[in-house]
Amino acid sequence: MQINIQQTHHTIGDFDAIFTYIENLLRDNQGSGELFIFPELFLTGYPLQDLCLQRSFIERYNDFLEKLNALQDKLNPTLLLGGLDYEMDSEGLPLRIRNVIFEFGPKPLEPIYTKKLLPNYDIFDEQKYFSAGSESCIYQFRDKKFGLLICEDMWMSSMHSTDPVKELYELTENEDITLDGVINLSASPFYLGKDKTRLIRASEISTLFCCPFFYTNRVGGEDEILFDGSSFVVNGSSVTHRAKFYQPDILKIEMSKFSPVEKSLRALSDRVNSWESLFKANITKNEQGQYRIPELSDQDCEEILQSLRFGIQEYARKSGFKNFDVALSGGIDSALVLAVMKLSLEEDQNLEAIFMPGFFSATMSYDLSFEMCKKIGVKLTTFPIKFAHSSLRTQYQDVFKDPMEGLCDENIQSRLRGAILYARSNQRNSMVLNTSNKSELSVGYSTLYGDSVGAISPLGDLYKSEVFALSRYINKQYGEIIPVGIIDRPPSAELREDQEDSQSLPEYPVLDTILEGILSYRLSTKNLIEMGLDADEVSKVFKLYTRSEYKRKQFCPIIKIKAKSFGTGYRIPICKKN
Amino acid sequence: MQINIQQTHHTIGDFDAIFTYIENLLRDNQGSGELFIFPELFLTGYPLQDLCLQRSFIERYNDFLEKLNALQDKLNPTLLLGGLDYEMDSEGLPLRIRNVIFEFGPKPLEPIYTKKLLPNYDIFDEQKYFSAGSESCIYQFRDKKFGLLICEDMWMSSMHSTDPVKELYELTENEDITLDGVINLSASPFYLGKDKTRLIRASEISTLFCCPFFYTNRVGGEDEILFDGSSFVVNGSSVTHRAKFYQPDILKIEMSKFSPVEKSLRALSDRVNSWESLFKANITKNEQGQYRIPELSDQDCEEILQSLRFGIQEYARKSGFKNFDVALSGGIDSALVLAVMKLSLEEDQNLEAIFMPGFFSATMSYDLSFEMCKKIGVKLTTFPIKFAHSSLRTQYQDVFKDPMEGLCDENIQSRLRGAILYARSNQRNSMVLNTSNKSELSVGYSTLYGDSVGAISPLGDLYKSEVFALSRYINKQYGEIIPVGIIDRPPSAELREDQEDSQSLPEYPVLDTILEGILSYRLSTKNLIEMGLDADEVSKVFKLYTRSEYKRKQFCPIIKIKAKSFGTGYRIPICKKN
Repeated sequence: MQINIQQTHHTIGDFDAIFTYIENLLRDNQGSGELFIFPELFLTGYPLQDLCLQRSFIERYNDFLEKLNALQDKLNPTLLLGGLDYEMDSEGLPLRIRNVIFEFGPKPLEPIYTKKLLPNYDIFDEQKYFSAGSESCIYQFRDKKFGLLICEDMWMSSMHSTDPVKELYELTENEDITLDGVINLSASPFYLGKDKTRLIRASEISTLFCCPFFYTNRVGGEDEILFDGSSFVVNGSSVTHRAKFYQPDILKIEMSKFSPVEKSLRALSDRVNSWESLFKANITKNEQGQYRIPELSDQDCEEILQSLRFGIQEYARKSGFKNFDVALSGGIDSALVLAVMKLSLEEDQNLEAIFMPGFFSATMSYDLSFEMCKKIGVKLTTFPIKFAHSSLRTQYQDVFKDPMEGLCDENIQSRLRGAILYARSNQRNSMVLNTSNKSELSVGYSTLYGDSVGAISPLGDLYKSEVFALSRYINKQYGEIIPVGIIDRPPSAELREDQEDSQSLPEYPVLDTILEGILSYRLSTKNLIEMGLDADEVSKVFKLYTRSEYKRKQFCPIIKIKAKSFGTGYRIPICKKN
Repeated sequence: MQINIQQTHHTIGDFDAIFTYIENLLRDNQGSGELFIFPELFLTGYPLQDLCLQRSFIERYNDFLEKLNALQDKLNPTLLLGGLDYEMDSEGLPLRIRNVIFEFGPKPLEPIYTKKLLPNYDIFDEQKYFSAGSESCIYQFRDKKFGLLICEDMWMSSMHSTDPVKELYELTENEDITLDGVINLSASPFYLGKDKTRLIRASEISTLFCCPFFYTNRVGGEDEILFDGSSFVVNGSSVTHRAKFYQPDILKIEMSKFSPVEKSLRALSDRVNSWESLFKANITKNEQGQYRIPELSDQDCEEILQSLRFGIQEYARKSGFKNFDVALSGGIDSALVLAVMKLSLEEDQNLEAIFMPGFFSATMSYDLSFEMCKKIGVKLTTFPIKFAHSSLRTQYQDVFKDPMEGLCDENIQSRLRGAILYARSNQRNSMVLNTSNKSELSVGYSTLYGDSVGAISPLGDLYKSEVFALSRYINKQYGEIIPVGIIDRPPSAELREDQEDSQSLPEYPVLDTILEGILSYRLSTKNLIEMGLDADEVSKVFKLYTRSEYKRKQFCPIIKIKAKSFGTGYRIPICKKN
């Protein structure tokens, strides 16, 4: 007997495409009599958020389910499909919504298991929308018995009120059932390091039940959140099957070929996915005995690069963009964004760079931008803002009887650039890539409506020191795409004479460590000082961070790379005493 | 015996101010021996969102509680204080957080009741942060017995899994206890029409227990969410005491003066606060038999006006702004914002208007803006954008070898205005008021980084037809602040020759009705067509709405006026098929 893991890739709510996919699968596997398992909420897409409450959406979904059921005479393979099960009230509105596994076999769609653990932390709001299940399910297919789980159900922690794995185990014990496999339908967002933790937990569950663990994940980029696929089968301590990273894939698994697994009860006691461990600050002691965020490994960089490429392309595809624009400044952030975009570019797409020098832009900024674009074959257009800046200065003085100076004079340059970049975007229907990084965003070191503009932010979840690491990695791995001069020069916004980031901020490795501590929520300023970080610097950074919330509220979606990111999962009031 | 309702007004996390408030209250009421009741989460402020997970915040909070406990020898009046009760793990991190009522009497702070119903819909995420209580509480103070509730606990619905009022009632029945009062500590956000529903429910509870119902609400503007106070006492069907709207207040209530209340069990059966009724589309049939959103009454308008004034001033106070800037266009939205701001202005504050005409601005736009500012004594500065627009046009053509035209030429005008407005804001540290309305926002009829800029949006929860109604109300009530010419002229963005809103959108009353249906989530496009709205218009509006999500994601906080608003409580993915 074969199990067939379907690692699928569809747009949220694209019922036509999902219907066609199932129709083709049924046609192509007519008479195979096998079991096909799909990701969590395959039928709708995920995360839906409020969309699952919207009546137009629900009507379209129900029509689609009806159309699916009309296929039933063609059925022979059996499908386990993740989807939503609506319980409606008398007015045709949702009373309860369940996140379920549908069996779609010789019979019409039938919900056979409801997700028990509804994650409700960070980016997850599932308790807002869904009602939890209370029953464990042992699913019999031909002569085999499978325990069913949906995503979060595989985890346990002090944060969760129930433990579905334990409950499933108790059911097998009480009824003296030996499982042939545990099947988990998932829609599990990517972040760096998550895969490793997931494999460890899968192995624990496999050794608890002494059978293979089948994990089906979806592929997709949903605004800021990425699903990387990477579905797998784990048997004991071995990963026996592995699906692709960020690509749809199919795993065909022969049930008779698994080796026996030695029993262990570890899954019942380990607490790997607690809030505490999920969002632990990623700070370690270096060789000099200082607490610092660790450097990214080559593998981290490659995963990040692939994530960014996928995230950008998903947003572009779903929004209908074929053209891309990046504003180059001669600094490392915009150079890295251009490099990532160049590496992501598909054949029918067009990328252009715009360099918009002002009074304080160094000649070197142009030279380096020109060098980079020439090398990678991207058209560079230079649009000086000096003239517009200068005439607005004069007009401002005339009109307001007040010279344009200080922050006012700095920010207008950045906003002029934003306006020109978006003029270009409007003219050629191009997607603007934001160039801010997480360090800047955290301390508000950017101009609202200026360099903070963009459809999506590739670097908004990477600290400045990680921007350097990724740039170096790309140069090492893909040829020297980013001129060394860009990597080596001191960071500057070039909005006034001789401006350098280090004048107003701590050195980046220190800044980034302080930020990692604060943003994890797990380290107070007091803790950071106890760890040896400079008290004045910690206090200054905390103040900058807490006062710049209003800028982050108006920021574009940031491709999520870390456990804790700005965006949907980060909810801090603007106005407060802190 | 007296009960003392404390309708307080403090900034989130302002522990110094809260400490001083309590210290003064204890000193001033030394020996009074009375009961003082405070709002929900009085000790921290609300909503905290992720702030309650942040270790620096928790440390400051715990220090503050310790300081409070050191006051205990001075204690004589008894305080019922809303606050957070942290259960910490071995690392000093929150394991569980409870939303409780602390008794602070002759003894140190002691949690005596935990909120049972944690709202987790719309703007509420309480299940994300808090653990629910399971025990009802009858609180004895001197010879009186009180049932305790926290905010949402007073409601019941099919959406909620428990019914705290019913549980409290069963406890009184089982133990044969007659209550002398039900006390509810609340932090209940304002929206139009909520107060009425709340009073009806309070009366139901009062008649269930045959005793007065004491309701303490907080005052505060938290980014987009407003708390209006309006605390009250209801006895049977009468409102016996009422606190101020948007102002701190104190109600002193003599317990001996309440009339007896006739029993009714209605509170156990009515389902007033269900998801279904909370977010019902506000559409009624008019005299012509058409379904339309109803017109705002004078009382609605007055409530809205006061809410906007309070919301703007709260944001300004907490962010440290004394200056305000409004960009006037000669249209009704910006005129209304200026009028509301003028009516809100405090003595030490400064308001100025900027008119930034472009090639397509009618002379009438200036004349009307000038007329308005002259009448209300606001300085108007004219900053033409024609020169900058024209030179950018020329430069754009030179640089890109492509004429600036269409959307590109339209939007650059709006973005130039945004840049100039923010230059002024940077120069004089002023708060920029956004001028978009809910209709525009819903269909994406505004320029990102252009007219969509601002620190806060006063009109973002008002449909265009409501903008008209509020403008007319202000003119009727406060003198003709807004020139009639502004109210009567056809709406236009004036970004190209002879542009009028009605060319691309349905008439506003129709547009707003369609939007109200869609945004409530409760009416599908099919439903709206069945209600007699034009199928093409419905379909066009739905498309515009669903495609403009990316603009709303980068929008500033909108002062919440309705049950269903854009902002925190509205969560729709940008990328989807819909």
